[in-house]
Amino acid sequence: MEKFHRNERLAVLMKTLCDSPGETFTLGSFAEMFGSAKSTISEDMDIVQNLLQKFDLGSVESIAGSTGGIRFVPGCKKEKVKSVLNSLCQDLSNSQRILPGGYLYMLDIIYDPKRIFEIGSIFAGYFFKREIDCVITVETKGIPLAFATAKQLGVPLMIARHNSEATDGPSVNINYVSGSSKKIQTMVLPMRALKGHSRLLFIDDFMKGGGTAKGIIDMAKEFECEVVGIGVFIETLEPAKKLVDDYVSLITLNIVNTEEKLIDVKPSKEWL
Amino acid sequence: MEKFHRNERLAVLMKTLCDSPGETFTLGSFAEMFGSAKSTISEDMDIVQNLLQKFDLGSVESIAGSTGGIRFVPGCKKEKVKSVLNSLCQDLSNSQRILPGGYLYMLDIIYDPKRIFEIGSIFAGYFFKREIDCVITVETKGIPLAFATAKQLGVPLMIARHNSEATDGPSVNINYVSGSSKKIQTMVLPMRALKGHSRLLFIDDFMKGGGTAKGIIDMAKEFECEVVGIGVFIETLEPAKKLVDDYVSLITLNIVNTEEKLIDVKPSKEWL
Repeated sequence: MEKFHRNERLAVLMKTLCDSPGETFTLGSFAEMFGSAKSTISEDMDIVQNLLQKFDLGSVESIAGSTGGIRFVPGCKKEKVKSVLNSLCQDLSNSQRILPGGYLYMLDIIYDPKRIFEIGSIFAGYFFKREIDCVITVETKGIPLAFATAKQLGVPLMIARHNSEATDGPSVNINYVSGSSKKIQTMVLPMRALKGHSRLLFIDDFMKGGGTAKGIIDMAKEFECEVVGIGVFIETLEPAKKLVDDYVSLITLNIVNTEEKLIDVKPSKEWL
Repeated sequence: MEKFHRNERLAVLMKTLCDSPGETFTLGSFAEMFGSAKSTISEDMDIVQNLLQKFDLGSVESIAGSTGGIRFVPGCKKEKVKSVLNSLCQDLSNSQRILPGGYLYMLDIIYDPKRIFEIGSIFAGYFFKREIDCVITVETKGIPLAFATAKQLGVPLMIARHNSEATDGPSVNINYVSGSSKKIQTMVLPMRALKGHSRLLFIDDFMKGGGTAKGIIDMAKEFECEVVGIGVFIETLEPAKKLVDDYVSLITLNIVNTEEKLIDVKPSKEWL
């Protein structure tokens, strides 16, 4: 069998672990992959752990027992989060983003894979310890972010839609009330989408009144599942009282002044 | 300045390059990052290149000239593509996927980040040389795949929707005719979404008649952009004549026999 040098092993170990966050690998499987002793791989892991720390890229965790092994845990330090959020706020403050009615154009950000992966990795680090089984979102604009978060948690994504389709199979419909405009909307989730007793993380790009998040909590109950975390990219400062309490936002949007062309947007206080 | 060992440099180089496909890094920027000579980094790169080849993970390309440097190019060998597609076909052939009306349930696959990244990396490898500026899709089910492909091409994603929203700003509407059911549908793209003269890659989860792909081609013209590639995860065998010619599918679905509970699904002939 071909032998690999330590530097080769490290590069491949780093890539393999980081590409599959949350997945448990046994030392034995790596030992076989590289034709090395387990003790050698174990030393490699110490180096990987150090490197991840040095570059603030996450960490490696050992899991004891018969199902044990090593897994990559996403996450970074608060300083790095702050610097990502500050750079996003600067970009979002550009007055050319102001649309009629005081809306902000931000599709270029929420559809940009590179930035969305950074944001998703913040959520993945924040929610990892809650043992998420599935990330859930509602179509359309939050999908890239929810998907990037799911990828970095190593769990599946599920998307609630506004209309059902033949390819969904039997599905559950619920009505929910938007927290800000009080409009009634429908969301649909295929019956096959969720296993009972799953721990769900709801991720969305934007929260105003919190109606969609509340809808997801109600929908989860129909599937005997529990929403154990809510993360939104941007929340509005008003209304201060949302329909849900336990959520995390990254950025808070205060006001878009269309006359003076001013946008007041800041990292949410959680991160300051 | 802190010095790094070769094994540390290799692990970080591998991760940095693979995380940002298509992005050009100068030797100088890495030399600075690690406090090493450029000639050392250049040797590191040869090792990275070898490793990528050995594990069939893509390749590293040098770009000459004043804007030159090194970039990671996604892609893998045909054998690996075949093995991914065979495993997908096996999973898709499970008779429990059959829904009333002869539809196939496949949300668990097209929303699974790990599998979708594998599929996206096949598309990224296939289309990389066409110098894509932007990946485009139509909501909803193709979004994760289009996003994963965009991530691995290192380009932005844009999503055409069925209705416009206030947060889109001014937008272009077009009507298009579904290739199979002949129904007229609408798609909307914000005016700010695309720069003129962009080279677009259309990615979708499913193609029957090709009407959506044709709609995207028409939409692109309104933005003075060009669709230079079309990739779909699954196409149906019938109708054999689609509304577009130049497209690539990964898997071909022949028939779903609801009575005998048989599904005929194969890698598309391109990959055999």
